Amino acid sequence: MSDSQKAVVYVRLKDGVLDPQGVTIQKALEQMGYDEIEKVRTGRFFELQINGNASNIEKKINEICTKLLANPVIENFTVEKA
Amino acid sequence: MSDSQKAVVYVRLKDGVLDPQGVTIQKALEQMGYDEIEKVRTGRFFELQINGNASNIEKKINEICTKLLANPVIENFTVEKA
Repeated sequence: MSDSQKAVVYVRLKDGVLDPQGVTIQKALEQMGYDEIEKVRTGRFFELQINGNASNIEKKINEICTKLLANPVIENFTVEKA
Repeated sequence: MSDSQKAVVYVRLKDGVLDPQGVTIQKALEQMGYDEIEKVRTGRFFELQINGNASNIEKKINEICTKLLANPVIENFTVEKA
């Protein structure tokens, strides 16, 4: 038995893909007086707790990202092992 | 005139706050055969591009997080200057 591992998956829109949520936030901030914020891009992250005995975990996390967590057509993902 | 600065704000649910989206993802992964993923917690992040001449920016980003980006009742945020 070994301890759990952790990994964090960051999902962001590809460059050039419009981010309406980010645009809305930037406009809201401007109206609130924070006009030094020139641009906002939004993203999601997922903290995964992984069974310590799991094998081949890098490959599996990549599969999980492509199949479930990210939309590879418009999004990129990066994985960080903690 | 100076270049833009960047900062990233990470927003996550406080410990102990139920994360239904994370639970759903974990169950979906289990059904897909990825039963080595024991727990999933989700979060959001915001990449801010900041005018290089802005002053007092740490304080302003903290205000922005509390007022707009995070719900301080149930969420924590961390700021990373890039």
